[in-house]
Amino acid sequence: MLRLWFNCHAATMAGGRYSIIEDAALVTRGTLIEWIGPQAQLPAGDYAERIDLGGRWLTPGLIDCHTHLVFGGDRSAEFEQRLQGVSYAEIAAAGGGIASTVRATRGADEEQLLATATQRLRGLLREGVTTVEIKSGYGLDLGSERKMLRVIRRLGERLPITVKATCLAAHALPPEFAGRADDYIDHVCAEILPALAGEGLVDAVDAFCEHLAFSPAQVERVFQRARELGLPVKLHAEQLSPLHGSSLAARYGALSADHLEFMDEADARAMAAAGSVAVLLPGAFYFLRETQLPPIELLRRHGVAMAIASDLNPGTSPALSLRLMMNMACTLFRMTPEEALAGVTLHAAEALGLAGSHGSLEVGKHADFVAWDIHRPAELAYWLGGDLDKRVIRHGEELSDEQ
Amino acid sequence: MLRLWFNCHAATMAGGRYSIIEDAALVTRGTLIEWIGPQAQLPAGDYAERIDLGGRWLTPGLIDCHTHLVFGGDRSAEFEQRLQGVSYAEIAAAGGGIASTVRATRGADEEQLLATATQRLRGLLREGVTTVEIKSGYGLDLGSERKMLRVIRRLGERLPITVKATCLAAHALPPEFAGRADDYIDHVCAEILPALAGEGLVDAVDAFCEHLAFSPAQVERVFQRARELGLPVKLHAEQLSPLHGSSLAARYGALSADHLEFMDEADARAMAAAGSVAVLLPGAFYFLRETQLPPIELLRRHGVAMAIASDLNPGTSPALSLRLMMNMACTLFRMTPEEALAGVTLHAAEALGLAGSHGSLEVGKHADFVAWDIHRPAELAYWLGGDLDKRVIRHGEELSDEQ
Ligand SMILES: [Zn+2]
Ligand SMILES: [Zn+2]
Repeated sequence: MLRLWFNCHAATMAGGRYSIIEDAALVTRGTLIEWIGPQAQLPAGDYAERIDLGGRWLTPGLIDCHTHLVFGGDRSAEFEQRLQGVSYAEIAAAGGGIASTVRATRGADEEQLLATATQRLRGLLREGVTTVEIKSGYGLDLGSERKMLRVIRRLGERLPITVKATCLAAHALPPEFAGRADDYIDHVCAEILPALAGEGLVDAVDAFCEHLAFSPAQVERVFQRARELGLPVKLHAEQLSPLHGSSLAARYGALSADHLEFMDEADARAMAAAGSVAVLLPGAFYFLRETQLPPIELLRRHGVAMAIASDLNPGTSPALSLRLMMNMACTLFRMTPEEALAGVTLHAAEALGLAGSHGSLEVGKHADFVAWDIHRPAELAYWLGGDLDKRVIRHGEELSDEQ
Repeated sequence: MLRLWFNCHAATMAGGRYSIIEDAALVTRGTLIEWIGPQAQLPAGDYAERIDLGGRWLTPGLIDCHTHLVFGGDRSAEFEQRLQGVSYAEIAAAGGGIASTVRATRGADEEQLLATATQRLRGLLREGVTTVEIKSGYGLDLGSERKMLRVIRRLGERLPITVKATCLAAHALPPEFAGRADDYIDHVCAEILPALAGEGLVDAVDAFCEHLAFSPAQVERVFQRARELGLPVKLHAEQLSPLHGSSLAARYGALSADHLEFMDEADARAMAAAGSVAVLLPGAFYFLRETQLPPIELLRRHGVAMAIASDLNPGTSPALSLRLMMNMACTLFRMTPEEALAGVTLHAAEALGLAGSHGSLEVGKHADFVAWDIHRPAELAYWLGGDLDKRVIRHGEELSDEQ
């Protein structure tokens, strides 16, 4: 069935870069884009439905390519304590920090995790996000990581949103392995990854490469195992210190390296050569009041694709809005609105291995798009917070607000 | 008619400070609060309706006490140019900056201004804002300031939200008075203010005291005129430099002085003595990438009430969310979540001269409140962007999402 969407403009991101069509029309056949171009060139067709978009601007459906949105509890009490003057050390000594999220996530059952994650994911969907990546990594044992990944799969079945599941068992050292990080990595490689991959719960493997998490050598063992299992890898790298995790990730052909505040030119060169996407996370930068900016100029110069994501997580980026991250990427990182839009569409799709089917408005790709009530695409990055009037279409079907 | 709202908790802000009741109930009679307290102490009553709030947290309806949300055009193109490397000077030379908003606002008719402002105000309302202040100040001539103020009045009639109108004719020097700031102030005092006050369009008078706007001496003439007209005053002060506008405002018993990054201890003492509220605007601080923080410790020490507002305006704070401002007040200004909540309820009401009727959940005040689907009030400041599930009640009536 052909459906015509007309009287609009489009930021198509076609051809792998920001590009626009004014006075555009788009034709969908079922779930796919059949045609897109200037309305004046619209081919005659037997359109079962004609939808007037009233001059709105189309963009690809937004893609949040780095989230941790399944978790138990929240960390608002810790946020409050910090502002009342309690130190990180005191909070950690009292069992706070990521340890508290691991406890709460282990303690929650699948239905509880599903309920709270559904609420957060529905918020992203209402904002125009039609594809999302969600990581495990608060379970840190086989049963709890499985529970998280099952919730992630169920979210993709429950809501009209494409969900990619990433196993981040190497996120932090679980308390039962205290002082034995190598043993935990052994356990991840020998037990957790193969079991969960075998159950079809894993689309990619991620790790946290940092002094307070895992060393490059430990991460490399995880990457080797992922390779043996035929799974692509990603990495939390260079957030707080320059360990060259992004170069390591590039050597393993990573889909992306994420954070990257402390990366250097050799890292950028390696990522460019490998085609790994730089996923920038301004929410965490803002929330932690970091001062070291990711090297945007370096990434531009070496032609590394830049994506932007929410990093939605309870400890360092409780960010419920991807559009706010576009504003922060511009305001804090000095990216342009065009780069910000590419960062939540085109390059976010690449960071998930979905460049062939998502991230731009091109013939043959999924008909996932948003029709925004704006005058210029730059408004998406310009308005600070809040919500913009829009219509969201996913797989060719318009979503209602009740979704 | 008595209506019972039960099975909730409440951050009442009663007694002029953050205070809570767990396991609370609230009774409304028509538009007012008839009773509030622990549910176990609920008096027997003939309740026409009983509304189960399912364990939600009540707060007073949020109050955004400083906005410029009526304007023509937007400044997304300028935002984009800045990020592409165009300098402020080049943008100003090309007619950009506030001059472009004045042109667009003068060029728009009342219906156009009403339509775009309605969209923005509806967004705030959906977020739980039930009272808002809106300033003129992009007209800068009698007819255009009147047009803005009429739109502001109509917004209050059109939407279920309490609107206070502030005349900010002394916002910037209009082009036809270039080089003649004193003449313009004469015109404001002799013509604009008396005419608009006489038409009942003005609830308060504001001015912008800054090197690039008006001097303290010029502001003082505006304040004298306001006093003669029986109108309370407010002031944009100490945003970019220490002109002691806040001390001047205090001398005129101002409802508030706003921005205040560069205020000093003498200013704080004067404001405390006058009972003027310090309205902090983290959106502008963030958007302009300011580095001089408002002196929160000083304000605390001298007991100056602190409010938080969006400053919603197209040039320096296109902020569509007051809850995001709570997060920014905590993250950037290091206020506590309790201070942030008081800043958008209790103290925001004071900044509008509405302390007797709004800003807390107390018997006899307006039944404006929000029932939030959260576990702790600190979550309101903790979650970054997005929307939280809630029910909004204004003047005793629950609002629907369609409002
Ligand atoms: Zn992360
Ligand atoms: Zn202002």
